[in-house]
Amino acid sequence: MTIFEDLESEVRSYCRSWPVVFDTAVGSRLTDVDGNSYLDFFAGAGALNYGHNPPALKKPLIEYLQRDGITHGLDMYTRAKGEFLKTFREKVLAPRGLDYKVQFPGPTGANAVESALKLARKISGKEAMINFTNAFHGMTLGALSVTGNSMKRGGAGVPLVHATPMPYDNYFDGKVPDFLWFERVLQDQGSSLNEPAAVIVETVQGEGGINPARIEWLQGLAELCRRHDILLIVDDVQMGVGRTGPFFSFEIAGIEPDIVCISKSISGYGLPMALVLIKPEYDQWGPGEHNGTFRGNNPAFVTATAALREYWSDDALERSTLAKGERVEEAFNKIAADTRTAEVTVKGRGLARGLQFADADLAGKVCAAAFERRLLMETSGPSSEVMKVLPPLTITDDELEEGLAVIAESVRSVTGS
Amino acid sequence: MTIFEDLESEVRSYCRSWPVVFDTAVGSRLTDVDGNSYLDFFAGAGALNYGHNPPALKKPLIEYLQRDGITHGLDMYTRAKGEFLKTFREKVLAPRGLDYKVQFPGPTGANAVESALKLARKISGKEAMINFTNAFHGMTLGALSVTGNSMKRGGAGVPLVHATPMPYDNYFDGKVPDFLWFERVLQDQGSSLNEPAAVIVETVQGEGGINPARIEWLQGLAELCRRHDILLIVDDVQMGVGRTGPFFSFEIAGIEPDIVCISKSISGYGLPMALVLIKPEYDQWGPGEHNGTFRGNNPAFVTATAALREYWSDDALERSTLAKGERVEEAFNKIAADTRTAEVTVKGRGLARGLQFADADLAGKVCAAAFERRLLMETSGPSSEVMKVLPPLTITDDELEEGLAVIAESVRSVTGS
Amino acid sequence: MTIFEDLESEVRSYCRSWPVVFDTAVGSRLTDVDGNSYLDFFAGAGALNYGHNPPALKKPLIEYLQRDGITHGLDMYTRAKGEFLKTFREKVLAPRGLDYKVQFPGPTGANAVESALKLARKISGKEAMINFTNAFHGMTLGALSVTGNSMKRGGAGVPLVHATPMPYDNYFDGKVPDFLWFERVLQDQGSSLNEPAAVIVETVQGEGGINPARIEWLQGLAELCRRHDILLIVDDVQMGVGRTGPFFSFEIAGIEPDIVCISKSISGYGLPMALVLIKPEYDQWGPGEHNGTFRGNNPAFVTATAALREYWSDDALERSTLAKGERVEEAFNKIAADTRTAEVTVKGRGLARGLQFADADLAGKVCAAAFERRLLMETSGPSSEVMKVLPPLTITDDELEEGLAVIAESVRSVTGS
Amino acid sequence: MTIFEDLESEVRSYCRSWPVVFDTAVGSRLTDVDGNSYLDFFAGAGALNYGHNPPALKKPLIEYLQRDGITHGLDMYTRAKGEFLKTFREKVLAPRGLDYKVQFPGPTGANAVESALKLARKISGKEAMINFTNAFHGMTLGALSVTGNSMKRGGAGVPLVHATPMPYDNYFDGKVPDFLWFERVLQDQGSSLNEPAAVIVETVQGEGGINPARIEWLQGLAELCRRHDILLIVDDVQMGVGRTGPFFSFEIAGIEPDIVCISKSISGYGLPMALVLIKPEYDQWGPGEHNGTFRGNNPAFVTATAALREYWSDDALERSTLAKGERVEEAFNKIAADTRTAEVTVKGRGLARGLQFADADLAGKVCAAAFERRLLMETSGPSSEVMKVLPPLTITDDELEEGLAVIAESVRSVTGS
Repeated sequence: MTIFEDLESEVRSYCRSWPVVFDTAVGSRLTDVDGNSYLDFFAGAGALNYGHNPPALKKPLIEYLQRDGITHGLDMYTRAKGEFLKTFREKVLAPRGLDYKVQFPGPTGANAVESALKLARKISGKEAMINFTNAFHGMTLGALSVTGNSMKRGGAGVPLVHATPMPYDNYFDGKVPDFLWFERVLQDQGSSLNEPAAVIVETVQGEGGINPARIEWLQGLAELCRRHDILLIVDDVQMGVGRTGPFFSFEIAGIEPDIVCISKSISGYGLPMALVLIKPEYDQWGPGEHNGTFRGNNPAFVTATAALREYWSDDALERSTLAKGERVEEAFNKIAADTRTAEVTVKGRGLARGLQFADADLAGKVCAAAFERRLLMETSGPSSEVMKVLPPLTITDDELEEGLAVIAESVRSVTGS
Repeated sequence: MTIFEDLESEVRSYCRSWPVVFDTAVGSRLTDVDGNSYLDFFAGAGALNYGHNPPALKKPLIEYLQRDGITHGLDMYTRAKGEFLKTFREKVLAPRGLDYKVQFPGPTGANAVESALKLARKISGKEAMINFTNAFHGMTLGALSVTGNSMKRGGAGVPLVHATPMPYDNYFDGKVPDFLWFERVLQDQGSSLNEPAAVIVETVQGEGGINPARIEWLQGLAELCRRHDILLIVDDVQMGVGRTGPFFSFEIAGIEPDIVCISKSISGYGLPMALVLIKPEYDQWGPGEHNGTFRGNNPAFVTATAALREYWSDDALERSTLAKGERVEEAFNKIAADTRTAEVTVKGRGLARGLQFADADLAGKVCAAAFERRLLMETSGPSSEVMKVLPPLTITDDELEEGLAVIAESVRSVTGS
Repeated sequence: MTIFEDLESEVRSYCRSWPVVFDTAVGSRLTDVDGNSYLDFFAGAGALNYGHNPPALKKPLIEYLQRDGITHGLDMYTRAKGEFLKTFREKVLAPRGLDYKVQFPGPTGANAVESALKLARKISGKEAMINFTNAFHGMTLGALSVTGNSMKRGGAGVPLVHATPMPYDNYFDGKVPDFLWFERVLQDQGSSLNEPAAVIVETVQGEGGINPARIEWLQGLAELCRRHDILLIVDDVQMGVGRTGPFFSFEIAGIEPDIVCISKSISGYGLPMALVLIKPEYDQWGPGEHNGTFRGNNPAFVTATAALREYWSDDALERSTLAKGERVEEAFNKIAADTRTAEVTVKGRGLARGLQFADADLAGKVCAAAFERRLLMETSGPSSEVMKVLPPLTITDDELEEGLAVIAESVRSVTGS
Repeated sequence: MTIFEDLESEVRSYCRSWPVVFDTAVGSRLTDVDGNSYLDFFAGAGALNYGHNPPALKKPLIEYLQRDGITHGLDMYTRAKGEFLKTFREKVLAPRGLDYKVQFPGPTGANAVESALKLARKISGKEAMINFTNAFHGMTLGALSVTGNSMKRGGAGVPLVHATPMPYDNYFDGKVPDFLWFERVLQDQGSSLNEPAAVIVETVQGEGGINPARIEWLQGLAELCRRHDILLIVDDVQMGVGRTGPFFSFEIAGIEPDIVCISKSISGYGLPMALVLIKPEYDQWGPGEHNGTFRGNNPAFVTATAALREYWSDDALERSTLAKGERVEEAFNKIAADTRTAEVTVKGRGLARGLQFADADLAGKVCAAAFERRLLMETSGPSSEVMKVLPPLTITDDELEEGLAVIAESVRSVTGS
């Protein structure tokens, strides 16, 4: 491990909580160089919804490499990209009746967000954005300007302007009508709100603390945007690709965002890839107006295509995710009820779940106790007060139970309950 | 090809010049779905310095995938990352006497630039930046703010502020002393220049039109930064990893930038990967202060390690690149001399070379004529006035001659010379 | 009048509602060039609290000019400035137990606001500001950035950033607890609010529609600022100098702002003059760090001194203002009750009073009807929905009754009630 | 003097150099409370071009006050404003063949500049501005953003963006062709210059160090603006109203700026007043889009009218100013020649003149030595290296000689030459 401490920047983070050297990984398990096995309730921060190295994707990936399929393609037409596009239309867009143009903006979620913001500004001719409290959209300057966390914002080194925060769902525990403030400042010609180009929203805030927005709130937001001629951008980077059950997390609300950001699990194999989905009337880009060297990561297109075929040809994965999510919720409710010595709140949707501790420090301690038991989880929320679980959607029931038992035990050990 | 026109965003660009569907690629050759072969003088815009799918990298990559090496690792310690770091120190840093901490900022050049700018602002407590005329640093908001091209800047949709441009080397054809304006506004307390945190510079501007800065200009810049306590960031995304001969393009000037951005060819296989190199005293990041989901692309670490071992264990590649570069220059000089009907200027360094046409339209026409002859090249420069060639460094002499002959013929056919 | 239409810019405004050429004015009456007399319920938008050309000020002003007292003094020490400072301390600061340093920032309210914002940023090292919905603080770039009106903001031509609006008192008709949103975003490390240097507030919003903040709201705001280490700036440009009764409008809340902006009626004679009052510990200006050519308008110091002596040596003016204010309120309540055909709301404090019409157009029509009857009033509010009255505090009871009768008649004539 | 030290903010500045209390003033002389007389080579920083309290203006001013002419008029039509406009057309615009609309933007130069910038942005739809090295345009946020001095800029507390500095005339001592850099970045689509709405320029930089731009440079600038469709704003706040000889300082170049800012000496009596002159086709303001409480300072209109009649009915003042300016130049040349122990440069135009000391500290010392001899002068320039003289244009020849003698003696005493 000396090499990391000697040579890698102080910016490194996860390795500080998990000071081991990982080597291989399959499904929901990682193995370190000493042969120890770890159960993964973290899934690459949501980039590994199908687990590590899923065989149905690994095979075509290796075949593609072996036959010297093009690796790096920028935005050239390639067979692999064509097949991805066809499959994406067939398995994702068409069955849901969605009509989107697909942009490959560079292979990260932040790239997708940066593209979405630029496009929304171009379409509307306005520069202002609305984001939500506790939003997370990325670490590049544009994405950071719509991100909530003050430590991360502080890293910008320039004032982050052009975005005004609005309260996310449940910000006042239901005591204030939805969008009261937002509607008022939009209607009031004297509010000093800069007229917004777009709203950017996550349907469940992952980094923000596993905060799910209610269906009616999402519908209200879409309706507000329509009434006020504001573009609606859903950042589905972490919650899309099945994390909450359906392929797109916003499907449950029956809304159709103007722009959708997709990344993390879209390649299915942890390979860098991102998409921006754009309603056809808003595809107002000029050629090359946004680009990026790695926007044509063809091995990722290959695994993405295989993943869509494997997991999205029927609704089995969606149903299984919902069932597993309910099982986690049930187990978490029991933990919350059993924990007498600390105040614990159960949060989440699908397989994005959290236990929020009134005493914020406990969340990190529970994660540490779980790591001692070889279970990987991280915290989230503005004060790292939420123990966050994002297991692979493909986790087996046994693995799920094993992990839930470790969590229960870790909570007990930390809280003494 | 219908699927692309139907479904892909209008932002797509290269495919408009090269309307074929590529399928496989090896070395300096791509093959389309109809079996046609193309010679590559473009090399993934500099991301494929070792050509397509180099066997010495392909083998360990496939082995890594086959043994289920971890694919997606964020900033966890992994065996693959450890080996990359050791190899990078052994093959790159140590032999050059360079002492840098290594940050993995997210897998694109723009991520590296965004990190570098954030870090420079954090270190200095200042927000202003100096960039150069015709610079290109990326398309995310921070990177775009130091990029010169007005069309690309226009895409931002917000005023791009916080950076002031300075004239790049030769901006006045040598008629004005180096740094006359820059020194003067720094010294003058009344110049209205916001005191800069850092200067960001490319040693050869690729997108800007294949403009190489002279050694003494680079040295002068480094010296100016030292005198005025300004951080020096070299963006070596396109010109690093051997493109101009040495591993780092700035080696010829004997300077040591405070921060270096590396991406494109670092993985060697066209896989997304980027580095920020930071002088140890400036590694002032807090844990997690900059991050990104795909900053631990372990297959890319594997190919990067293999590439360093294969190509940078001795100086063969560097010497060969310089020799090939001279051959291109010689051939270009002959073309320029033979072209009586148009004004042509030869530009470049190493294997980053260009032919600049006084009549800007000719550059694109020559590229189109070359594509008809199945040679891939693109234009660069503010008016797309430069025919830009970036062949794989590993191109064979025969391929190089073949391509140069196509270029000569294409220029003749377009200019009628 | 041709000369104005021929030569004056289209930006001219009041003259469009009152298309006559005024010549002389005394007390609450103006006379036009045709000898017509107008009753003034407008008082120079609050700059003429003692009426036009009050004799007690006119005499020393003319004497000062006759004896060639210095007119233009920048920030040189002058006898006239010294006398003003002594009198201000004796008549204003000392009796109220207030300890402020006095800055002469340039002779307009906008100058005072610009100074206050600059100083607050210097003190705190933060750039963000909190302003309130429907605030008005001036038309220069800094002042405009904390002003609410969208038409006026649009005039900036650059994005107005660095300020985030918060709901003013009663913004939700009392249905939401005070400062619910403000407190929440301050406490939440993930709210994306940029940590503010200062809050700038009017105790009664004049341009915003004659909106008085409750005493407990002002106290709550002061207390919130103290708890969160945010500077409190009261912009008392329009409501200070007795407009609401006491010299400072914030006296009724028993709060002591860190910085106070004073202008409009401070000279007492309609001469340009402004003050910034600064708690001694926050007087962190360097010499000349803010300046302005006309910051030493000595004739204004002379009239200001005379005004303080004349009107603030006892509490007669304050009591009279309160009494007249109550009389206006009573009359307005009757108008509101009598107006059956339109929804009218009575608003205000002291002698800043308004009638708000649910049908916004009516406010302007009533003002026009009053002008036909030779009474001067203007509208305010984001939709110009408020008929605003700011009579001279020195208006006689007869004049007040005369004006109120005209208003009642004008409302009747417009609403047909 | 205790009252000032006790009560006035630390921001006070001139009084630190001149620690006496002034009382009265006539013509070129001030008198302090102890009866000492001072000769004024400072003239209210250019606001007293006709000296203190000129009798030809004092009389109508007092008469106006005595007959209760309206004092405070906002933008109402008043007899006094009408007379000013007529006189301004007759004495200033018509004889020079100039066609401008007149805006009264608020009574300070900074207000005029803020208006000009807002209007230029509105007209062009662009936000970027070009300013010049060592420019001074005011201390409010918009004006400060185009001002050069780093101390003053630092006071803003927010990054000053949206303006890019260009080299003023002679910035490189004539070694670089005029506008080389400016033209190049405008023509180059890759320069990263944000396309400018307008250029703002002083014909002679007063605060910047008494730097006169050559006629051909001003003409070249006007021509460049025309070619590139950039609005030209001349800030004639300090150099207008005869300071350099003609009424407008730009007359000598035969150019017609699109927008002109006028203030300081326009009222003639040191009363706050400012104008923005706008070419009719650019008078695109909406009613009330820019305003200010004191934009109708009617006593200033009265003195301004009297001043135009008194001083601009023939060319006597202009000729006298030029003659006196030449006399100052002659005397300064002799001082420079006689000063063996220090390097002194003579600068200026008309009655804006300076002695620049290579050893910057000497300028302040000479001013201090002159003050001991009861002559008022200040320094300017980025390092306060210029002894700046701005005598009243109406100074008598004897007074001028007296002052020049004091200067010569002060230089000798300080330099020991």
